[in-house]
Amino acid sequence: MDALKERILRDGKVRPGNILKVDSFLNHQIDVEFLNEIGQEFYRLFKDRPVTKILTIESSGIAAACMTAQYFHVPVVFAKKAQTKNLDGSVYRTIVRSYTHGKVYDVILSRKFLTPDDHVLIIDDFLANGCAVEGLSEIITEAGATLEGVGIIIEKGFQEGGKMLREKGVNLHSLAVIDSMTDNAVIFREDS
Amino acid sequence: MDALKERILRDGKVRPGNILKVDSFLNHQIDVEFLNEIGQEFYRLFKDRPVTKILTIESSGIAAACMTAQYFHVPVVFAKKAQTKNLDGSVYRTIVRSYTHGKVYDVILSRKFLTPDDHVLIIDDFLANGCAVEGLSEIITEAGATLEGVGIIIEKGFQEGGKMLREKGVNLHSLAVIDSMTDNAVIFREDS
Repeated sequence: MDALKERILRDGKVRPGNILKVDSFLNHQIDVEFLNEIGQEFYRLFKDRPVTKILTIESSGIAAACMTAQYFHVPVVFAKKAQTKNLDGSVYRTIVRSYTHGKVYDVILSRKFLTPDDHVLIIDDFLANGCAVEGLSEIITEAGATLEGVGIIIEKGFQEGGKMLREKGVNLHSLAVIDSMTDNAVIFREDS
Repeated sequence: MDALKERILRDGKVRPGNILKVDSFLNHQIDVEFLNEIGQEFYRLFKDRPVTKILTIESSGIAAACMTAQYFHVPVVFAKKAQTKNLDGSVYRTIVRSYTHGKVYDVILSRKFLTPDDHVLIIDDFLANGCAVEGLSEIITEAGATLEGVGIIIEKGFQEGGKMLREKGVNLHSLAVIDSMTDNAVIFREDS
């Protein structure tokens, strides 16, 4: 998606540890109109699938998931990162290792929001080691639901997640795939 | 907002400890089209204010903030609940006590996303003791920005937050104010 690559080149900041900060438009401050274009692009890519639900993980996936859901006319469900007082006991649970935050956390999702009838599109802002998508996929499998696709805004192509998911046959589309990044340059994969 | 009160009566569940679960449409599963109506209603209520930014706290405020921002054509900024590796050191910081989660946490917001030129509308899903709004207000004050209003989806009118904010002269609109709730009944304030 050319507009996204241009935006990353203009506003993204590369930080030590292969961190790409896009917090001015994606995951701290949110350019909602730009995210709407991203939602439209995900719709274009996945509209032939019988999507009944869009699944993401709090927090930074929520905005993109909602913008995308507007085009599919389906609900969003977001998995939560810790047990809270007002979640029922009846939850799916998995473990995710966050690359950015450098820690492991429980991810839970109330069983009533994912059933065998559901056809699920996973939306997330970043794909690095693929742990978040793997965790969500496990929950979808446990629910007996069907994974229809995975839509990622920015894939770090130099990490393993994208390769692993494609090898498993997952219907993965990343709007921008970064092959390498240094302080001075972000290099995108040609076909992304 | 009548559609909201009807939805709460239909899908909300009262739990011990004055917890109202609306996780089937608001803060775990999200009915994006309904949230769009909520965004339109906030726009109707605050459109006369010169809003330049919508401010909320992760996670459950993000969806409503984004839906509202679409009508104002302004960015969303969401405050984050913990220091992460990819936030700059240059942040506003305050402390919030969550009623629902029963704990105290740090809230941070990158200084570059709130300046003295900003006119801010705070959007959140719940108002109970008012700590989240107070924390965000402190950040707005510290930034030298202007608080134009506070839009709340569900106010627990039997807790102190709403009263405290109105006494301070805050331009607060809650789309549904609950005066009392028991296992069998949710009673709304007449004028809400």
